[in-house]
Amino acid sequence: MNKARVFVTLKEGVLDPQGTTVKHALDSLGFAGVEDVRIGKFMEISLKESSPDKAKEMVTAMCRKLLANTVIEDYRVEIE
Amino acid sequence: MNKARVFVTLKEGVLDPQGTTVKHALDSLGFAGVEDVRIGKFMEISLKESSPDKAKEMVTAMCRKLLANTVIEDYRVEIE
Repeated sequence: MNKARVFVTLKEGVLDPQGTTVKHALDSLGFAGVEDVRIGKFMEISLKESSPDKAKEMVTAMCRKLLANTVIEDYRVEIE
Repeated sequence: MNKARVFVTLKEGVLDPQGTTVKHALDSLGFAGVEDVRIGKFMEISLKESSPDKAKEMVTAMCRKLLANTVIEDYRVEIE
């Protein structure tokens, strides 16, 4: 069994209104010196597949088909 | 300047309907052998603070106050 960790982040240059809102909230709470906040998704996927290479290939295919919107998002896959 | 990476995940035992939905969608797309999917948040925070230790302390405080709901979520902070 393998566990995959997937990070989906907005591409550079894509506006992140959720991040901007969190930045303003942090400013209001008195946290000084916050320059930028970018928010993404983090997924942990448990797979029956025992080969780490095949698991990575499978999860990469999942990212392309479902987990990430590759027009505006980047993804990164790590196998534990 | 420091960059912090924050991972916010649901605690063990907390239901994750979003993860369940993604699991079913992966099954429907023909990905066999997916045992479990858990979905969390991933944040990148750029800080003016130059000391990594102080930056970590500050981001941990942000997690407790705003970024994570510590009743149902765990958080992890990494400084780059």
